[in-house]
Amino acid sequence: MSRYPEITIIGLGLIGSSLARAIKSKLLCDRLVLFDANAEVRDKAMALGLGDVVTDDIAMAVQDADLVVMAIPVGAMANVAGEMAPHLKHGVVITDTGSTKGSVIKDVSPALPDHAVFIPSHPIAGTEYSGPEAGFATLFQDRYWIVIPNGADDATTETLKAFLSATGAIVETMDCDYHDKVLAITSHLPHLIAYTIVGTAFDLENDLQNDVIRFSASGFRDFTRIASSDPVMWRDVFINNSDAVLEMLQRFNEDLSYLQRAIRWQESDKLESLFTRTRDIRKRIKDAGQLDD
Amino acid sequence: MSRYPEITIIGLGLIGSSLARAIKSKLLCDRLVLFDANAEVRDKAMALGLGDVVTDDIAMAVQDADLVVMAIPVGAMANVAGEMAPHLKHGVVITDTGSTKGSVIKDVSPALPDHAVFIPSHPIAGTEYSGPEAGFATLFQDRYWIVIPNGADDATTETLKAFLSATGAIVETMDCDYHDKVLAITSHLPHLIAYTIVGTAFDLENDLQNDVIRFSASGFRDFTRIASSDPVMWRDVFINNSDAVLEMLQRFNEDLSYLQRAIRWQESDKLESLFTRTRDIRKRIKDAGQLDD
Repeated sequence: MSRYPEITIIGLGLIGSSLARAIKSKLLCDRLVLFDANAEVRDKAMALGLGDVVTDDIAMAVQDADLVVMAIPVGAMANVAGEMAPHLKHGVVITDTGSTKGSVIKDVSPALPDHAVFIPSHPIAGTEYSGPEAGFATLFQDRYWIVIPNGADDATTETLKAFLSATGAIVETMDCDYHDKVLAITSHLPHLIAYTIVGTAFDLENDLQNDVIRFSASGFRDFTRIASSDPVMWRDVFINNSDAVLEMLQRFNEDLSYLQRAIRWQESDKLESLFTRTRDIRKRIKDAGQLDD
Repeated sequence: MSRYPEITIIGLGLIGSSLARAIKSKLLCDRLVLFDANAEVRDKAMALGLGDVVTDDIAMAVQDADLVVMAIPVGAMANVAGEMAPHLKHGVVITDTGSTKGSVIKDVSPALPDHAVFIPSHPIAGTEYSGPEAGFATLFQDRYWIVIPNGADDATTETLKAFLSATGAIVETMDCDYHDKVLAITSHLPHLIAYTIVGTAFDLENDLQNDVIRFSASGFRDFTRIASSDPVMWRDVFINNSDAVLEMLQRFNEDLSYLQRAIRWQESDKLESLFTRTRDIRKRIKDAGQLDD
């Protein structure tokens, strides 16, 4: 079984609205209920016909749900879990789409009643755009969707995994701490670096800044795409995965100092040797079939 | 006038071979002579029919040339200029395609005879691929090609600019030091950062490294593209633009420390405020028409 009679999505940004579209296009439930706290977002969701009901009443939104998906910034999870807790029916499955999993488990688990089953998850999918109009039904197609079993029984976990697979995703289970470490290096640190370098350019004197924009195609532009991702979502990611991010950042800083010193002392052999090694990783990503999308 | 009777290209990598293709497809000379020191590269260039002559004899390569383009790593410029100097005819125009301009002027100018006119230049174009088979005729189409007049007379400079425009490029003149500063922030620093983070990932323990590759789509992958650029070319760039790169790196390090501290002390307002500002730069790049290619 890969469907639920009634599904509720909390939060209609890029991820929530894409999931709504995927559910509708693949008929993965009988009734799709959408909640967002923002009136403008609700209006857009209604105009786009993303669900059967669009509401700002959390009790009404979740009371009949068999699956609730929290697609909100990780800093907002605790509050939302607390607000919906009294209205959840027995046996309801709760998942989320947050980019940090340790913090979400810590925030959400104590807020939920015992008769709800919380199975955190994380779709490795996204674009630099935000909001309900930025979503699309195939966002999850052939992308990984990581599930943290979190002590749930096998049957319940398998049903959720089957549902997530039905959106087009490749579903993997993972330990919570390991997830946070892998994401710190593959996603959180790259975003932090990109935000930093774009910020550095932003602080340059005026003429130089204009020419940075004109000549951005020489490398800088790729960083601006990453650094235009949703500010609140990313603020919450760094605050909530700070241990793993700071550990990876420490390694990165050491490696950057090594290269900085090699440049200052004109040690070309050290530079060439590193630049040759890094080519190999690209090749392995290609061999793993993760280059084309 | 935007053509030369005889053009010689020294170095048949991505840039040199793309220029050869552009010249051929737009008929920008009567005779195109190609030089490369590497036998394998020469064989490929011959098989691909990139020029009228392919040679490893530098005297023969340049003796009748009206324009010589040095499309080689900036660390090799001094040697090549010295080798071709005795064979250059009166009034020949020499340009190069190096990513650093101060070092090239310092290396090349003293090696050339007074009867040659050296006008350095830099096409802001490229891909992560290298070698003669990676080139294509439209590489320079709608990309900037920066010319450093370097004291040449106006007529000679205008002829070179008209020729470069004829390859499809948007030609701009710029002061040498300013070029090196703009490129340090838009290109050299982004490449250094990308090389660093991919290197950091490369040093992770084995399991983690494999999962970094599997989940690279979450941000890391963009860095691996940049970090798979030609190692020798980039080694030379950092060695030869070290002052400007180290200055920009210093600013970047300060900004990164500021964010690192904000994460450690959970100062979410500082993070959100920077992440909101950096979005604006992406919008300005879009407004400047530099997003689509």
